[in-house]
Amino acid sequence: MASNAYQSAGVDLQGIESLKERIGAFASLTHGPEVLKGVGAFAGLYRLRNYKNPVLAASTDGVGTKLKVASLLGHYESLGIDLVNLNVNDIVTCGAHPLMFLDYISLGRLDPQIVEPMLRGMVWACRESDCALVGGETAQMPGLYADGEFDLAGTVVGAVEESAIIDGSSVVEGDVLLGLPSSGLHTNGYSLVRKVFDIDDNPSILYQQYSELGHTLGEELIKPHRSYYHTLKPHFGRLKAVVHVSGGGLPNNIPRLLPEQLAARVRLDAWEPHPIFNLIQNVGEVDPLEMYQVFNMGLGMVLICDHDAWPSLQRSLPDAVVMGEVVKRTDSTQVHMQR
Amino acid sequence: MASNAYQSAGVDLQGIESLKERIGAFASLTHGPEVLKGVGAFAGLYRLRNYKNPVLAASTDGVGTKLKVASLLGHYESLGIDLVNLNVNDIVTCGAHPLMFLDYISLGRLDPQIVEPMLRGMVWACRESDCALVGGETAQMPGLYADGEFDLAGTVVGAVEESAIIDGSSVVEGDVLLGLPSSGLHTNGYSLVRKVFDIDDNPSILYQQYSELGHTLGEELIKPHRSYYHTLKPHFGRLKAVVHVSGGGLPNNIPRLLPEQLAARVRLDAWEPHPIFNLIQNVGEVDPLEMYQVFNMGLGMVLICDHDAWPSLQRSLPDAVVMGEVVKRTDSTQVHMQR
Repeated sequence: MASNAYQSAGVDLQGIESLKERIGAFASLTHGPEVLKGVGAFAGLYRLRNYKNPVLAASTDGVGTKLKVASLLGHYESLGIDLVNLNVNDIVTCGAHPLMFLDYISLGRLDPQIVEPMLRGMVWACRESDCALVGGETAQMPGLYADGEFDLAGTVVGAVEESAIIDGSSVVEGDVLLGLPSSGLHTNGYSLVRKVFDIDDNPSILYQQYSELGHTLGEELIKPHRSYYHTLKPHFGRLKAVVHVSGGGLPNNIPRLLPEQLAARVRLDAWEPHPIFNLIQNVGEVDPLEMYQVFNMGLGMVLICDHDAWPSLQRSLPDAVVMGEVVKRTDSTQVHMQR
Repeated sequence: MASNAYQSAGVDLQGIESLKERIGAFASLTHGPEVLKGVGAFAGLYRLRNYKNPVLAASTDGVGTKLKVASLLGHYESLGIDLVNLNVNDIVTCGAHPLMFLDYISLGRLDPQIVEPMLRGMVWACRESDCALVGGETAQMPGLYADGEFDLAGTVVGAVEESAIIDGSSVVEGDVLLGLPSSGLHTNGYSLVRKVFDIDDNPSILYQQYSELGHTLGEELIKPHRSYYHTLKPHFGRLKAVVHVSGGGLPNNIPRLLPEQLAARVRLDAWEPHPIFNLIQNVGEVDPLEMYQVFNMGLGMVLICDHDAWPSLQRSLPDAVVMGEVVKRTDSTQVHMQR
């Protein structure tokens, strides 16, 4: 086998070195004075300042099979944005401020045409959420992934003052539920969408124009997951609970932060789901209830606040809709959805 | 499509719910009073206490194609241990103490026979490194992975007092290099090993007994990555640099912490590489130099300390070997390996 045995085993060492340099240059765009070192050492280092009783908040998640749709379209920036924003939204739910982000990209063959746009998207999103891209791993896994296939995961680390944690514990009967619009599907339900439109076997459908969408199916499906950090940050102090409407939709996510003895009454006529949800339901003949359990149905975040606080909150969050209220729980159901 | 459309699209929602409960139970074994909530909310929360000027240290990495070997053997606990320890070792290099860990498991079909042993391994390793498993994601990706295939990544977050960061900057000529034994291949070079032994096409070779190993090839290849945290923790204050010998081996990892104007002289006769390295080299006819660039060759960590400090350090680290010293740099090579 002699020299370059590793290269012939499918691992591109030189490619990874030059990629690391470019990643370092990208990543440094996100580094403020808190970051002690760029990417390249064994660990990312970040100075934690100005917290009296800091609580660290962390989340790891991936983009799910949205990556298959984005791959078919060759559009990778949006995946990088998705990856950062979906994790940032998870820690924002407890009032935390994002500090650092780390990514994991795993692929069969090192393809800069895939990796670099994804990293560019991550850098854009990290900058938008005041978050430093301090590390990550680009793993070459010949034999696990075919050429052009990859997986993607990310971790965000943030911090919150212990006394400022938002955890739903102060929610009481009569509190108001506000919904913040999603940009589209965000990153949930893509396995179902791929099946409904038979995308794997018929990828050309992604280029089909739908008048109700105003553009192609593909353009709709790769819309980036919205980040709610800057929207919510000025209002953390007035929020009793923040729910990220991710996998499981409204009925499964709202209970994650609602005290046991309370329930939520959600008025489904309070907002108009994006046309994409109707389209999926009609084309796939999906049960309406299941739609709400799989998709965000147009609301990416649910906020719970005091009844007296919502008028002023709604003024500063002009796209928020009053979508329901907190009621006494009377049975096993914690989320009642009413038309 | 009617009800259960998501299930028929290959996503097992009930399975993931019952798995989440069991994960929560596993994970809670790692939760001390610093952890505010168990797994299940949107974010893992961890109280940071007793630091004056805390610096957060984080690392994300995966186990590489070692997972293919472990899969063939149906031995998943060791992968969980690997995942935690390889990341812990990365942040230990700067003197950080591990605090929280988050995992990402991605698979085609939710298989508890794979996921649970891996999580068990993670819990074992987290407990051993005083680290709390606070979150993670088990992603079902039908269409990306076949049944039984998966990918695995993890993130550790630790902290270090800013004044106690170990960064190699105080290394001077005459300092001593100590090597700490590895348990075997750790998690590097598996794509090459798989090729050398033709493991993918001839997996039965994993059950072949090798007299020089004292057991089967498979047993050798799934030995868990050793964690050095508890070994090094009492000595952080006397270490000038700590090098995790991961991908790239001694010649590529030592320079990551060595000041520009210095070089390392490594005496290759100072230690005896495990028999597995000889076996790989002979069977694969791998160039000896490349062996050192791909594998740890028997040393999982390299410590750099003051010449006067090493006798007492070596006494408290009985398995450490004096493997070389720091010299003036005279040319482009920063690591000179001599017999």
